[in-house]
Amino acid sequence: MKIALDAMGGDNAPVETIKGAMMALEEIEGLELVLVGKKEIIEEELSKYSINKDKIEIVDAREIVLMTDEPVSAIKTKKDSSMNRTLELVKEGKVDASVSAGNTGALIAASQLRLKRIKGVLRPAIATMFPNKKGNMLMLDVGATADCKPDFLNQYAMMGSKYVELLMGKKNPTVGLLNIGTEEGKGNEITREAYELLKNNKRINFRGSIESTDMLNGDTDVVVTDGFTGNMVLKTSEGIAKFMLSSIKEEIGKSFIYKIGALLLKPALKNIVRKMDSSEYGGAIFLGLNGLSIKAHGNSDSTAIKNAIKVANRFAEMKFIDELKNIIDIQDKEIKL
Amino acid sequence: MKIALDAMGGDNAPVETIKGAMMALEEIEGLELVLVGKKEIIEEELSKYSINKDKIEIVDAREIVLMTDEPVSAIKTKKDSSMNRTLELVKEGKVDASVSAGNTGALIAASQLRLKRIKGVLRPAIATMFPNKKGNMLMLDVGATADCKPDFLNQYAMMGSKYVELLMGKKNPTVGLLNIGTEEGKGNEITREAYELLKNNKRINFRGSIESTDMLNGDTDVVVTDGFTGNMVLKTSEGIAKFMLSSIKEEIGKSFIYKIGALLLKPALKNIVRKMDSSEYGGAIFLGLNGLSIKAHGNSDSTAIKNAIKVANRFAEMKFIDELKNIIDIQDKEIKL
Repeated sequence: MKIALDAMGGDNAPVETIKGAMMALEEIEGLELVLVGKKEIIEEELSKYSINKDKIEIVDAREIVLMTDEPVSAIKTKKDSSMNRTLELVKEGKVDASVSAGNTGALIAASQLRLKRIKGVLRPAIATMFPNKKGNMLMLDVGATADCKPDFLNQYAMMGSKYVELLMGKKNPTVGLLNIGTEEGKGNEITREAYELLKNNKRINFRGSIESTDMLNGDTDVVVTDGFTGNMVLKTSEGIAKFMLSSIKEEIGKSFIYKIGALLLKPALKNIVRKMDSSEYGGAIFLGLNGLSIKAHGNSDSTAIKNAIKVANRFAEMKFIDELKNIIDIQDKEIKL
Repeated sequence: MKIALDAMGGDNAPVETIKGAMMALEEIEGLELVLVGKKEIIEEELSKYSINKDKIEIVDAREIVLMTDEPVSAIKTKKDSSMNRTLELVKEGKVDASVSAGNTGALIAASQLRLKRIKGVLRPAIATMFPNKKGNMLMLDVGATADCKPDFLNQYAMMGSKYVELLMGKKNPTVGLLNIGTEEGKGNEITREAYELLKNNKRINFRGSIESTDMLNGDTDVVVTDGFTGNMVLKTSEGIAKFMLSSIKEEIGKSFIYKIGALLLKPALKNIVRKMDSSEYGGAIFLGLNGLSIKAHGNSDSTAIKNAIKVANRFAEMKFIDELKNIIDIQDKEIKL
């Protein structure tokens, strides 16, 4: 497999991106990497490593989409950005998948613009892993499409189920509709209509609505929602986790005894932080596009980059895009019947 | 002030509701309470206290809306429920406000049915306090109306601002629109249109969109959102807080050293739990109805009930309903101009 990495994307690029790339090359057999960005900078970083460079190719790109850039205009004006060039390699079939930790909004816009939707896909979705009591689950859409129609959610359920089946090896994964109540008829217009579609969709293992208080109990493998709500839930989770951790820190600072307690508990607390940290999960993927574009978290360190490359590699090995095309084809035929 | 308490409502009724009532009577000067529920049960509970019973009245109600009842049908069939009778006392002007810790859905339905909307109010909202880094803030709507129009949100902003001004004594409170991005034009259809209305509303101190990652930083006093999103954010917060606390517990169980650390940290961790616990905030209020109906958390203990009664008392003292009518009147006149 050959994977393109946006070497300049993310808060810790290029040091951590290149380091992550080196880790991936050591870990994944048969992997080849294309590092995209300013040639001289990449070469300088690479010179730090004694690794065999046969499996590394560099594609020069003179511009960088900054984390602070306005997404759409950055994509339009910075044609020679590392992000753009990375996606072009996917589009032209020169690589099997791509990874970027760069500006999320820009990557959403660029991925849609460069890779285009699979024929029959109503809207692409961003799918991401989320921790729960039994391990983790997939949530989608978490931000590609803010105004969703019920039909979109029905497709997300099918694409998400295929993801969990192939990537996590779980047969017949359970699907839940994210909602504010579990009884039929609960929710807003979108969820009420989506509920009907999901209930009647024989191609998924639908288990009804699920509330966000309970979604972490581990009984749902695929949590389906519109991009506005999904993004809101993701950001709320991040906000609450940060708030709790900072509250704990504040409390600890209040007494010497607490400080000793915290010292003893430090490794345990660190595990919690890691559990809540999205960078552990190897990023998010744009589902429904004609090509594999993986988004690593903006503040990814080398491990997170390596994990994202591993995920990209697995998706490519599974021929995930072909699998999705297959689902959409079958759905099209069913609709015509 | 005279306040009606649904003595049978909530997970811990009647023991904790009556205890909370006694605490409120001791703490709030001039308070009179009407306890609504099965007379003999209330009398038995009251016999435990040596408090002067001059300020207590009992209204008999033979039925109870259970926490597990289907809301709308419970309200229709259980006419003689303590919840229903409590709200009737408000409607008939026999009390200044009411408090119930009973079935949330039923209380939403019953409050709307019995108290009706203030003339000019498009939709009622449920407003609740939420902890943040500088103390707390108000969030609305958190579940009264799932399908909101932008106009509703504009009214919520005005009603919420009045709440914070009167109840928290904060002049010109800041208003934020809950959204998935802070730039103008971000969000879904509702938030984009609501943004325009809020921006042009000279009667509020609008500060733009706010993301749920940042809403806890303490710069926003009133967070405005539709009932679906607000309820989702509330439930996500609850879910994440619970998940983190149970993860911490699980981690602590893994080593003896951790257990000692946890023992030393116990009071600090308890403070966090309290901070995240909505029952500390004296409940939620239905804004926009012709009467004061306060919702205490379902698992309220006596302190939470006392706090809810205090909040109800303060709302009544402030003549909050008249203040809201005033706002809506002024808005009506402005629209006509």
